[in-house]
Amino acid sequence: MKLYEFTGAPNPRRARIFIAEKALSIETKQVDLRSGAQFYAAYRAINPRCVVPTLVLDDGTAIGEVAAIWRYLEETTPEPSLFGKTAKDRALVTMWAHRWEIDGLLAVAEAVRNILPGLKSRALVGPHDYEQIPALADRGLARTHDFFADLEETLKQQFFAGGDTYSAADITALVAVDFAVERLKLEIPGEYQALRDWRARVASRPSASA
Amino acid sequence: MKLYEFTGAPNPRRARIFIAEKALSIETKQVDLRSGAQFYAAYRAINPRCVVPTLVLDDGTAIGEVAAIWRYLEETTPEPSLFGKTAKDRALVTMWAHRWEIDGLLAVAEAVRNILPGLKSRALVGPHDYEQIPALADRGLARTHDFFADLEETLKQQFFAGGDTYSAADITALVAVDFAVERLKLEIPGEYQALRDWRARVASRPSASA
Repeated sequence: MKLYEFTGAPNPRRARIFIAEKALSIETKQVDLRSGAQFYAAYRAINPRCVVPTLVLDDGTAIGEVAAIWRYLEETTPEPSLFGKTAKDRALVTMWAHRWEIDGLLAVAEAVRNILPGLKSRALVGPHDYEQIPALADRGLARTHDFFADLEETLKQQFFAGGDTYSAADITALVAVDFAVERLKLEIPGEYQALRDWRARVASRPSASA
Repeated sequence: MKLYEFTGAPNPRRARIFIAEKALSIETKQVDLRSGAQFYAAYRAINPRCVVPTLVLDDGTAIGEVAAIWRYLEETTPEPSLFGKTAKDRALVTMWAHRWEIDGLLAVAEAVRNILPGLKSRALVGPHDYEQIPALADRGLARTHDFFADLEETLKQQFFAGGDTYSAADITALVAVDFAVERLKLEIPGEYQALRDWRARVASRPSASA
């Protein structure tokens, strides 16, 4: 297997943390997004959507999208489980991971991609160019603040972002929070104690540095 | 089990078609989005994200997000399979379903929600209000056209939206295409023969009327 990824981008980090939690050793290959390598014919043949990461199996099958890579690795390496042990657990982790992807990661990405001058015509990932929209920079920031608030409320009710135990949902939530803090220079509001405690707890896992 | 849903909305339709393909009989309850019933305390207690559908199990567990509802139903009622028989198949269907959700359904929703006067401060689903942005109406339409083009290219290579057999990926792609045609009054370009043939093939399944 080989993971095509890019160290600085949030979605590949979701795959890397998952792989580290599974204690798997998978060869990686950098796709340099700064030079547009995701649009080169060689990579387009692997992933026509021109996004990272992609997991390429030994038979050449190319699996794109983090949700799909996770599903494959969870089934082929069930322990330690990152989705839970029962159909119900797996559904709930999938629910939370999906929520933090749409309301968290995509929110932060909306701000980042409509603010950074270097992403001028790249307001969305994927094979097509879309121009930045100034109003979306503001909306992305508003959504990011709402994400922090929603995550805080959730973490008052449950110890982790996907339930009572660490799961794939924590990976998406952590990557989204870190993306906001690092790229948007945002601070988690001081009164969000549940979110701050959770972040310290999850970030202290060795996988977080993956 | 009970499915909380709303007949006119695209995401509940993804759940209904899946349930019809599985030949399951699940009680449904309408959450009237037109009157804002998704924000009432009774529904908020079931789904704090205030979106439909939600599948509530007999023990009271509430599963939100279509990807999670699908995963639960696929595991508890494996036949007929809508994700495939192997870990690899399931990963590929998950990949395509995710792509058509992000690049298809969210693209059409961006156009619809930034155009329809009745959705003025509801440019995104979820618990928070965001105002419409005129430039997003245009971008949503551009993304929808790109979605049609990408789906056409994909369907030139494979018979279905998720591979060689009918799968959950077709459900998301069909719901997104129908949403565009019905709500945005768009036509599928005449030269997109693979897309037109696929739509006729998938829409002719009894489940499509669910």
